[in-house]
Amino acid sequence: MVKVKIFDSKEAQSSARKMEEAPAVDAQAFYDVLESRRSVRVYSKAPVPEETMRRCLEAALKAPTSSNLQTWELHWVRSPEKKQLLVDACLGQPAAATAQELVVFVARPDLWKRNNGWMLDHLKASPGTPGKALQYFNKITRIVYNQGPWSVYRPFKWVWFSIRGIKKPTPREPIHAGQMQTWAHKTTALAAQNFMLAVRAEGFDSCPMEGLDSQRVKRLLGLPRAAGITMAVSVGQRAEGGVYGPRFRFDSAHFIHEH
Amino acid sequence: MVKVKIFDSKEAQSSARKMEEAPAVDAQAFYDVLESRRSVRVYSKAPVPEETMRRCLEAALKAPTSSNLQTWELHWVRSPEKKQLLVDACLGQPAAATAQELVVFVARPDLWKRNNGWMLDHLKASPGTPGKALQYFNKITRIVYNQGPWSVYRPFKWVWFSIRGIKKPTPREPIHAGQMQTWAHKTTALAAQNFMLAVRAEGFDSCPMEGLDSQRVKRLLGLPRAAGITMAVSVGQRAEGGVYGPRFRFDSAHFIHEH
Repeated sequence: MVKVKIFDSKEAQSSARKMEEAPAVDAQAFYDVLESRRSVRVYSKAPVPEETMRRCLEAALKAPTSSNLQTWELHWVRSPEKKQLLVDACLGQPAAATAQELVVFVARPDLWKRNNGWMLDHLKASPGTPGKALQYFNKITRIVYNQGPWSVYRPFKWVWFSIRGIKKPTPREPIHAGQMQTWAHKTTALAAQNFMLAVRAEGFDSCPMEGLDSQRVKRLLGLPRAAGITMAVSVGQRAEGGVYGPRFRFDSAHFIHEH
Repeated sequence: MVKVKIFDSKEAQSSARKMEEAPAVDAQAFYDVLESRRSVRVYSKAPVPEETMRRCLEAALKAPTSSNLQTWELHWVRSPEKKQLLVDACLGQPAAATAQELVVFVARPDLWKRNNGWMLDHLKASPGTPGKALQYFNKITRIVYNQGPWSVYRPFKWVWFSIRGIKKPTPREPIHAGQMQTWAHKTTALAAQNFMLAVRAEGFDSCPMEGLDSQRVKRLLGLPRAAGITMAVSVGQRAEGGVYGPRFRFDSAHFIHEH
């Protein structure tokens, strides 16, 4: 099925592309942000400047995204009426009810084809685009992400990958609409984490919320069925008692495995 | 079904818990890290110190995690033999083949019950745990995340949530094993983004990879069927030409929506 070689290390290494230098960075300053990011459940009345929000939203979109297809959306709910509806859809939890700002992170697996077309337009318009890159968005992505209506290709993909996979490494997912959802949710979650850290770097706090009524949220935002609500993220400044106790993680030895 | 009130803003606000202060942070230093994180496809031969890796792995585990259930695992593949097998399972792409270190981010929805038990043990052993917190892990999580064998509760959950949802906001997911996978993948992706940013803050580079053979990776790591491979992340120092061109994102106006 996939006959095009996606990755060619010789081409990559010999490419005359300009080096993008890795600038010197301040590790401690970064860890100060990361360590002080806590899920804040109660916010103070301090407003979050609009420009701060815009910088954090733009920072979210600098996360890596699978095949650069950017199947994400950030819905910033600002009108008081819609905000109240969103708070209700978030089950009225204080992290939403006391928030200054609310952003819904939305996975859009249904828009992969539109974005793939945009990628092709961009690559065709860029001088010096390597042939492999064009081939990737012309051929590979169209095989990998196209599941057909009602995922009709699923059994064929499954059989083909299973047979091919006996002898050689073969991607196994995504082969149906549910896995396309997962695929887009993962990419959108990367953006959400960028956003929450940026909020903290700007001196504010956040809380990710998955306990919500996704149907009501989709209706509120005018989203189609195929969209997925990755999470809502509230933003504001932590109030006294707004952090529910010190960060608690189980011993990392349970989670970090060495092979 | 869910009769316990999960969130009680009065209890939260009146709690005598100590304030966790938000320290002053350096926004520009953070953005330097975020902006310079690029997906690096070819690495130099510079090794990554073990202590650097350990700090980054620990940083990953400071991401927020749904219901604090920490349904993630980080598999650091260090032995040359296993590394080669992992490179093969990543389809031989140069971002894996030239990497100094490889970490597989794994979603473990199947371990929610074990971790829920650990949370209860922890809360019971902690003086001053609020009743609501105990109730949450005693009752709510056990309703929300328990799908029964082969997701047999799915039709009942669906009917119940649909009826309840007519009148009041009601969570709609997760109601089956596939949605449990998505749930754990989202949490694991948050950790992966923390990790990649920490790697950059430490002066190194990374690349997330989803184009891989998840069955081979699971076999290599000794993981059960129910585990999900969120992504592999390679680590090293960018080589000349290792970044394939400047970051390209479509106009953010397509993705940031205001309501």
